[in-house]
Amino acid sequence: MKSKHLSFDINRRVVISGIALLPTLSGTLLSSAIQAQTTSNEPLASWNDGPAKQAILDFVRDTTDQGNANFVRPEDRIAAFDQDGTMWVEHPIYSQVVYCLDRVPFLAEQNPKLRSVEPFKTVLSGNRQAIAELSLHELEKVLVATLTGMSVDEFEAEVRKWLIEAKDARWKRPYTELIYQPMLEVMQYLRSNGYKTYIVTGGGQDFVRVYSDQVYGVPVEQVVGTAAGTKFGYRKDGTPFLTKEPKLLLNDDKAGKPESIHLMIGRKPIAAFGNSVGDREMLEYTDVGPGKRLMMLVLHDDGRREYAYGPAQGLPDSKIGTFSQALYDEAKKKGWAAISMKNDWKRIFAFDEKA
Amino acid sequence: MKSKHLSFDINRRVVISGIALLPTLSGTLLSSAIQAQTTSNEPLASWNDGPAKQAILDFVRDTTDQGNANFVRPEDRIAAFDQDGTMWVEHPIYSQVVYCLDRVPFLAEQNPKLRSVEPFKTVLSGNRQAIAELSLHELEKVLVATLTGMSVDEFEAEVRKWLIEAKDARWKRPYTELIYQPMLEVMQYLRSNGYKTYIVTGGGQDFVRVYSDQVYGVPVEQVVGTAAGTKFGYRKDGTPFLTKEPKLLLNDDKAGKPESIHLMIGRKPIAAFGNSVGDREMLEYTDVGPGKRLMMLVLHDDGRREYAYGPAQGLPDSKIGTFSQALYDEAKKKGWAAISMKNDWKRIFAFDEKA
Repeated sequence: MKSKHLSFDINRRVVISGIALLPTLSGTLLSSAIQAQTTSNEPLASWNDGPAKQAILDFVRDTTDQGNANFVRPEDRIAAFDQDGTMWVEHPIYSQVVYCLDRVPFLAEQNPKLRSVEPFKTVLSGNRQAIAELSLHELEKVLVATLTGMSVDEFEAEVRKWLIEAKDARWKRPYTELIYQPMLEVMQYLRSNGYKTYIVTGGGQDFVRVYSDQVYGVPVEQVVGTAAGTKFGYRKDGTPFLTKEPKLLLNDDKAGKPESIHLMIGRKPIAAFGNSVGDREMLEYTDVGPGKRLMMLVLHDDGRREYAYGPAQGLPDSKIGTFSQALYDEAKKKGWAAISMKNDWKRIFAFDEKA
Repeated sequence: MKSKHLSFDINRRVVISGIALLPTLSGTLLSSAIQAQTTSNEPLASWNDGPAKQAILDFVRDTTDQGNANFVRPEDRIAAFDQDGTMWVEHPIYSQVVYCLDRVPFLAEQNPKLRSVEPFKTVLSGNRQAIAELSLHELEKVLVATLTGMSVDEFEAEVRKWLIEAKDARWKRPYTELIYQPMLEVMQYLRSNGYKTYIVTGGGQDFVRVYSDQVYGVPVEQVVGTAAGTKFGYRKDGTPFLTKEPKLLLNDDKAGKPESIHLMIGRKPIAAFGNSVGDREMLEYTDVGPGKRLMMLVLHDDGRREYAYGPAQGLPDSKIGTFSQALYDEAKKKGWAAISMKNDWKRIFAFDEKA
């Protein structure tokens, strides 16, 4: 537990920088079903040959071959994947924050007083510049109001509806289509070799669980994320239910990632995938132990097909959001493999043309 | 999260009542390996025919037959088992509390000052009457000192050693042999029918995980229990590690059970097994939802082969520890099935002669 007070430890740059780009804050876009990602039978079909692909193939070969010194029993084949920026697009704004902003008009319908209360008044104004200038404290009020206070079943239904209706500004597609196809193939390849794949995300555990099975093939119990506590109670008819409380229980970012892994999984991963300083401790934790281990960092170096940000562009730390040169240097020193979106991936999304 | 302060919500009657019966507080008993439980191929072989056995067979038949209206998809076949008093002996004292008391001499070796500090001085005195009279607050000090402050790896190694060495007072066997063979058969029968079996215990999550796989066939990630937070840090050589902190993160008892189930599993069980008021909310939570559900309560009504306590003996609430007449009445009203240890079980333990 990081704090007894609610404090969503979000990176303001990532949260804020994209708000001006939002298409709309209402949730009334055309309906579109979440589509299953298509895959080829060839492992890692969307990967170019190169050191990143080879590192994955070598790791799986060595850890699953009983004759190899690095053989790992199936029950210890645990792989952890960060979500935002590792499995799907995080730039220019976390999708879950879009969800929270999109929910504000619904909250105001239920509670019209919010229309004259900040920060809700600003969010409802649609003034993107003003929204982008909200303080982190004000943004937290929006997150708390939209992520807590309802039953867990109500929250799940609201997120499910939003995932179908909402579309991102650039690709005009549901957010769940903005999954990196090559990373999905890594998950599938690991699972087909006896690995259990976990999402270990700074995003909301209950949020990601709504789509984890359908989108990633990861069952809800294998999603570890930032979590508010819940409170058991009874409805008037005596039916028990759980309410999402405005209390931070797990802050699944930075040091919180290995801490949550211990709590939720109880085994140390031997493979971990991340992209930002929020993943540093998880990668360090995974790195230590007997036998072969695989640590990989996704580099956002493809401004044409996705976004370019981070040390690959030679930008100073102050300009690269959650990635940092120091992490990149640590990765090089420790032999963690970098994944260049530009060079290692034939395509980024399932909807991209195949190479 | 129940409290920002550490507060192990233990039932004083159960904790204290058996201290006078402890054989020894040192951990120097003969070594004995944890033995695998033997089982027959026949499902529920240690059960007598009767309504309890039939309820289990009917439930599994209906939920796994695709032609049945109550068919449940494999991914939703979740069964939750309380541990103390449901899977193994809790009377006259929780085994984990014995572990904590047994650890005190080792703590005093490392920190001789404890020898003159209460409650450690009393525990070290070996005066069982005085130990049994320790207040709950004093006992909590012992639990905190013995369950937190070390790395998670050190804790695991200590528990593993204790499990081999320590023996209970009555049966002169390792605690992990005091598993109820019929309940183990229920777990195995459910798993062989596609169910995922979880331990959901008020006991320590890290404690139970040390033996869950070997003793119950339940992998560590399927153990949900009371949990202290951990803290990520680095050793002097830069190696990352986790320390068990004296902060209660999950209080997995009463309302905390459904709350932890939501956090850790993310799906509602459709079968739940308990024995005490600590399981009430879990049973109520499991009871609500579409389709068939199975809720069962183990009754301790066999003073000869195990212990007799609870409403089956007609004792008033004040005399029956964690069981209560009110829970028994609720179970009857809601159709939860009672398991009579005396009548439903051919044998209690794997080491009992077969009937």
